[in-house]
Amino acid sequence: MGFGVSGPADMGRESTMSAYHPLSAEEVTGYLAGVACLQPRLAGLGELICHEIGDGNLNLIFNVRAAGSGKGVVVVKQALPYLRCAGEGWPLGRQRMDFESRAMEIENRLCPGLVPELMYFDKDMSLIVMENLDEHRIMRKGLIEGVKYPRFARHMAEFLARSLFMTSDLYLPSDQKKALVEYFARNAELCKITEDFVFTNPFMESADNRWNPEIDAQVQALRADARLKVEIAELKDGFLARTQALIHGDLHTGSVMLNLDDTRVIDPEFAFYGPMGFDVGALLGNLVLSCCAHEIHSADPEARRDYQAWLLDTIRQVWDGFRQEFLRLWHDQNSGEATRPEFFAQCGGDAALRLYQRSYLRRVLKDTAGYAGCKMMRRQLGIAHVEDMECIEDPKDRAVAESLALTIGQRLITERHRVETIHDMIDIVRTTIGIRSPR
Amino acid sequence: MGFGVSGPADMGRESTMSAYHPLSAEEVTGYLAGVACLQPRLAGLGELICHEIGDGNLNLIFNVRAAGSGKGVVVVKQALPYLRCAGEGWPLGRQRMDFESRAMEIENRLCPGLVPELMYFDKDMSLIVMENLDEHRIMRKGLIEGVKYPRFARHMAEFLARSLFMTSDLYLPSDQKKALVEYFARNAELCKITEDFVFTNPFMESADNRWNPEIDAQVQALRADARLKVEIAELKDGFLARTQALIHGDLHTGSVMLNLDDTRVIDPEFAFYGPMGFDVGALLGNLVLSCCAHEIHSADPEARRDYQAWLLDTIRQVWDGFRQEFLRLWHDQNSGEATRPEFFAQCGGDAALRLYQRSYLRRVLKDTAGYAGCKMMRRQLGIAHVEDMECIEDPKDRAVAESLALTIGQRLITERHRVETIHDMIDIVRTTIGIRSPR
Repeated sequence: MGFGVSGPADMGRESTMSAYHPLSAEEVTGYLAGVACLQPRLAGLGELICHEIGDGNLNLIFNVRAAGSGKGVVVVKQALPYLRCAGEGWPLGRQRMDFESRAMEIENRLCPGLVPELMYFDKDMSLIVMENLDEHRIMRKGLIEGVKYPRFARHMAEFLARSLFMTSDLYLPSDQKKALVEYFARNAELCKITEDFVFTNPFMESADNRWNPEIDAQVQALRADARLKVEIAELKDGFLARTQALIHGDLHTGSVMLNLDDTRVIDPEFAFYGPMGFDVGALLGNLVLSCCAHEIHSADPEARRDYQAWLLDTIRQVWDGFRQEFLRLWHDQNSGEATRPEFFAQCGGDAALRLYQRSYLRRVLKDTAGYAGCKMMRRQLGIAHVEDMECIEDPKDRAVAESLALTIGQRLITERHRVETIHDMIDIVRTTIGIRSPR
Repeated sequence: MGFGVSGPADMGRESTMSAYHPLSAEEVTGYLAGVACLQPRLAGLGELICHEIGDGNLNLIFNVRAAGSGKGVVVVKQALPYLRCAGEGWPLGRQRMDFESRAMEIENRLCPGLVPELMYFDKDMSLIVMENLDEHRIMRKGLIEGVKYPRFARHMAEFLARSLFMTSDLYLPSDQKKALVEYFARNAELCKITEDFVFTNPFMESADNRWNPEIDAQVQALRADARLKVEIAELKDGFLARTQALIHGDLHTGSVMLNLDDTRVIDPEFAFYGPMGFDVGALLGNLVLSCCAHEIHSADPEARRDYQAWLLDTIRQVWDGFRQEFLRLWHDQNSGEATRPEFFAQCGGDAALRLYQRSYLRRVLKDTAGYAGCKMMRRQLGIAHVEDMECIEDPKDRAVAESLALTIGQRLITERHRVETIHDMIDIVRTTIGIRSPR
């Protein structure tokens, strides 16, 4: 039971390069050759080649392969002292790599096989070396193409249940949990990005917003909807002031790399203590976004129905699997401060605890619906859009998908209080898009 | 706007005594003479005399007076490395004085005149020097005697509103708030005392519990009440995982020193980020305990009715005053991350914000009722009882008051979801005790 907050930060001591500078692709192999603990892994691979993967919003990412076999060896990720997609004028502390490496190390311990292996962390260089997932791809790209991933739901249910349960007061003694809260409270700079760009700016006048002019009327109406804004403020309050579990903090389908067999969660730099529903909602909300986009992507009605049905069933499976695994862990490893077994002993024991568990998970589900709604809406209204929508070229076509996403998002937020089961949440998606129920 | 987390901790650098040892009463005046920054205040007072006040549960407390005038000069409070009331076998970190001094310094800044002035903090010695409140007395003792304090409600409303609002996300930018969360998350050892002795042990079999045998049947019934336990678990979850504001953490009527004109909150060593309702509930719950005890204390029915009416009206005034001052601050100083004015600009502005404020404060009230219930019940069931009850010598008489307190506590917890106004909360007290409504 339990785990401390020390860990990968200590690995950095091994580094011989103490002055930070952004690496160039040419320097990376030389850098790796200087890291003693990596040598057993690199031995016998021959010459390494490195190229930069240019799509990071925040960081430098280098793909290192063996020149001979062409196979991936490691990935090197280095934080830049500014927000890369916005340029050097937007400073962003390199310290975020400390939080990413710490979160990754915890995820590796709690969810082995569901995250890339972390091999090395250099604190001075704000750099991590990790497993090269060259047989995986970003899930969002697969979803756009209509690929079905048969193991995704089971894997993500496990990731969510284990990472959330085992960092919460349900599993950890209160001093260990508070030590983690303390550490991750320092990741305030990245939290502020979420506060601004998920919960605030998209729903008001802000210079960084952009939206499809075809949905302008809907956008203005949403911004003027007092009831919606009050509900978003309540969800934002949960993000600001609820330390329920160590959350990934950015768990959309672009933070999942997978193939038909294997699933990995990447990029936990936003990790901090927040509401569990924020992670579950981010993932499910992005599956709903895909469902909306396929109104356009899939021209053939039957193919569309088929893929949307798979997406909705996947949403159900993720939640059901998460719930089941979460309850199993709670039953087997109820070692935290929150619900000590002896507390319930005299009032029916497990039966009383089950009563509490049901109400606890019902609250997580309501949060999930609400946060899914926020995450969906901001992608049509704010600074950061998603490729699912952006790849629809015709603005009128795109407006169809975007408008559905906004309506569903709004409904998930304002109707979340009456969401009692995952079917209630799915029904909001189904009835808005007009997908017939298989039941 | 805002304030950092540095502060009185730095004062300690001035200290010349770096090795910790518990002071004796004889050493105190010599110690004070060695602290340079105190000399302007001590000059001209002549000889000082010191005696130990033996009633601290956790600490050494010394009362320092001028030998000539007999007037109070300062109070010295020093942490012992164990829980004093339990003996040296129960270790407790001296670091708690760091949190107490930091909290006291923040309270002094936010609520000047409502807390004792903090004059000096010696980190190495785990010691603070503060204002001597020799014209004040502990409120609980006054309540037992039936003293009415005409300014208490207004003062405490102000203390609660200012200390809670101005440490929350409503007032502070998110990075400043998170820095405070980070710092106070380290006060885990004292939080654990609350987790055990307020939310857990009193409601289950535990060797440290004690209760009046006259109420044994009720005690057993409460422990077997699954619905009650589920609600307490939910309230405990709020204490463990909600960082709404920097709370005092132990705000019963023994932590208030006052007279007819002046009111001071003392002993914030339990301070950490938790739910606002925990502080408001602690205070109001202890007023309700007094109300129950006066069923016995006041033999004359008219005097009893009169004092209970004053107590219930004081409860109303504390809440109404808190609510009013909290809303005034929110209106005038809405500078935090949570409800930025521009977010509500397009949807009716202040009207939309008011909608949110009403729902926010309704949640604080429901929490207040629930935490008041927990704090009341544990005083009859757990390790730490209150003098209001303990001073009733006859066990049968005491059982009358204790039984009322338990029933009210239970109702406040289980019925809190339908508490919409302070009158709903007061009606639970009134109808249980059988006090007629003045309305």
